[in-house]
Amino acid sequence: MAGIITLLTDFGLQDTFVGVMKGVIWGIAPQVKIVDLSHAVEPQNILQGALLLGWSVAYFPAESIHLAVVDPGVGTQRRPVAARLGEQYFVGPDNGLMTCLVEAARGRGQAVEVVHLNRPQYWLPSPSRSFHGRDIFAPAAAALANGATLAALGDFIEDYALLSIPKPEPVENGWGGIVLHVDRFGNLATNLQTAHLAGREDITLKIGSTILRGLSSSYGAGEAGKLVLLLNSAGCLEIAEVNGSAARRLGAARGEPVRLTFGVPPGAGKGVL
Amino acid sequence: MAGIITLLTDFGLQDTFVGVMKGVIWGIAPQVKIVDLSHAVEPQNILQGALLLGWSVAYFPAESIHLAVVDPGVGTQRRPVAARLGEQYFVGPDNGLMTCLVEAARGRGQAVEVVHLNRPQYWLPSPSRSFHGRDIFAPAAAALANGATLAALGDFIEDYALLSIPKPEPVENGWGGIVLHVDRFGNLATNLQTAHLAGREDITLKIGSTILRGLSSSYGAGEAGKLVLLLNSAGCLEIAEVNGSAARRLGAARGEPVRLTFGVPPGAGKGVL
Amino acid sequence: MAGIITLLTDFGLQDTFVGVMKGVIWGIAPQVKIVDLSHAVEPQNILQGALLLGWSVAYFPAESIHLAVVDPGVGTQRRPVAARLGEQYFVGPDNGLMTCLVEAARGRGQAVEVVHLNRPQYWLPSPSRSFHGRDIFAPAAAALANGATLAALGDFIEDYALLSIPKPEPVENGWGGIVLHVDRFGNLATNLQTAHLAGREDITLKIGSTILRGLSSSYGAGEAGKLVLLLNSAGCLEIAEVNGSAARRLGAARGEPVRLTFGVPPGAGKGVL
Repeated sequence: MAGIITLLTDFGLQDTFVGVMKGVIWGIAPQVKIVDLSHAVEPQNILQGALLLGWSVAYFPAESIHLAVVDPGVGTQRRPVAARLGEQYFVGPDNGLMTCLVEAARGRGQAVEVVHLNRPQYWLPSPSRSFHGRDIFAPAAAALANGATLAALGDFIEDYALLSIPKPEPVENGWGGIVLHVDRFGNLATNLQTAHLAGREDITLKIGSTILRGLSSSYGAGEAGKLVLLLNSAGCLEIAEVNGSAARRLGAARGEPVRLTFGVPPGAGKGVL
Repeated sequence: MAGIITLLTDFGLQDTFVGVMKGVIWGIAPQVKIVDLSHAVEPQNILQGALLLGWSVAYFPAESIHLAVVDPGVGTQRRPVAARLGEQYFVGPDNGLMTCLVEAARGRGQAVEVVHLNRPQYWLPSPSRSFHGRDIFAPAAAALANGATLAALGDFIEDYALLSIPKPEPVENGWGGIVLHVDRFGNLATNLQTAHLAGREDITLKIGSTILRGLSSSYGAGEAGKLVLLLNSAGCLEIAEVNGSAARRLGAARGEPVRLTFGVPPGAGKGVL
Repeated sequence: MAGIITLLTDFGLQDTFVGVMKGVIWGIAPQVKIVDLSHAVEPQNILQGALLLGWSVAYFPAESIHLAVVDPGVGTQRRPVAARLGEQYFVGPDNGLMTCLVEAARGRGQAVEVVHLNRPQYWLPSPSRSFHGRDIFAPAAAALANGATLAALGDFIEDYALLSIPKPEPVENGWGGIVLHVDRFGNLATNLQTAHLAGREDITLKIGSTILRGLSSSYGAGEAGKLVLLLNSAGCLEIAEVNGSAARRLGAARGEPVRLTFGVPPGAGKGVL
């Protein structure tokens, strides 16, 4: 029996949507622990939700249940689903929100099993058409936590939705990527990962007209205001400003292209060219 | 014995006010589960707090305790109170914050019992005059969760404060209402409810100079950017923009008048006129 | 065994940093209760974090563990530490974040014991250089909650970092201080405390060109818009606007100087001169 249900939504914290989901969950599964992953996903930005989930779930115990709702299609034909992805579970809309979890499970050679949540006995009575988080996903996640099987919750499906996560493209002597995520500190996380660097630290990254050289080891590697490149805690190549915001400094946002090339001109130090 | 204490305040999350209340609660009642309903009520907006509570508590189990603090009168003559409202409890200032819970309990024919929290043995020692959430309401809610009776916490009163919640007015062939709440997505929830529609879907709503027709079934019912009318998850008639913000689109805010009339000109589709 | 771990960070709530720390903690110590103190410390503002901690921990039971991360030096030579401060614990970076807790414990004549968290068996495997909250502090706090001793977690040190907290200076017939903190309501908390007032209520405070007189008892002591002086719930002299924001009204921010003098001209009422 799972001990943790995490919540990731675009609901924000100004309304009581999130609290109400917890009331429903604890009304059914009072023993479960609930973790807020984030409720500040940009409204309807499924890709951002998928990435945040992908960077987070590895830090939760086996059998954790990840309830995620970024759901512009609520009340339309999009299906509610629950899935077993290796050792963890996903509950939410069938719109690609679980893409990174599916890719990670497949990458580890683990099974992916998905059901269409089409058994109303596991929903709240008279579910609304606009708040499946409360009326379908919360009770389904709580039922899973109480030991219900996927098979009990609905019919297995194979044609679940997956997003296309933007992947770096090979370019001459390097990779072309994009900024995938801007965090609270203004750090710019790219889709270039540890594997793309192939162990090299003599790298040059171009973003807009700014050129950065060399891999730093920490956010504090240099004096305040210096721009640095580092591998962040999710394994993504990231642009940071020491004690500052790289996003503000560079005027950069999600989607901004970057170009990684190997080799730093001899004698050049780390930092901005 | 109640298992859940919910918190709803205008304290925000930048300071540690909310966390400190949890420290006090768990110091007294370590077995209780705590749910944040919202801490983003607009400072001192008692009506907004009352509405959010009213839309939320039905999703919590019986015996839940709702601790709410939107309290511009803290430290003045306004009384601290606790109340039994049917199967649930309220703890907070006597300023009308529990109005919707009282109305709901009365509407179900359930008893409403209110006490003035005037027994200092249930407060923290030396309570401040500026933070009753920490010094009076949190220990009182924790005592309730531990099984204290209302009668133990204070003297019963009948003259507790109630707000006047804005109700729709009948107009020719329809209702005049207002926008009661703008949520995180920019959806505009009105005070027109399921009962005002009397089962009809052939409705026309005027807000400012915009005219909307017909009841949609979901936020995604149409192409991005379309304005739709729907009954939201709290049973209120709501104006939404598909994949967008109706509040931004219409430049509308809380308090904006709306006019509902029955009937849609023949042959007209749903949507904006 | 401690029952509560509090979290105070500058991580914000838009990313999943905080949720991931909870996953790590509950993976190791599932019995612990977790309280969010605040995650909205201004990025890298160690002093603000130290003050918020100092104002909060007294409201938590003995043996509580306060995990705090405001950590511009993560990945550099700054050490990770854990400390016993009287009856409570601190876990976080060695950068002064625990200063107010150390001062409070010393003020009560209680022992302060600090260890350098240098035993990797209590960290996550392969810790990152950019997210010690997840990889070092969360597992160390969870180990403490499970009963590990400080001595098991690392070597005792004496040369831990402390901040210099700005203290009021004596001036003729009073004190010169500063605004230490601006809360969610725009209340301006100064570093003048109950002890500086020596029981007197006939005080005059000058901030910018505004002069305030007399100590009020509550935020609601007067008509809306009136500026009042009061001792806040942390024992600091505070400037507030009844039903409004003193920060906005006065255009004042953290660091603004204030001057307290004793005595109010005879016949003058409380309020703005």
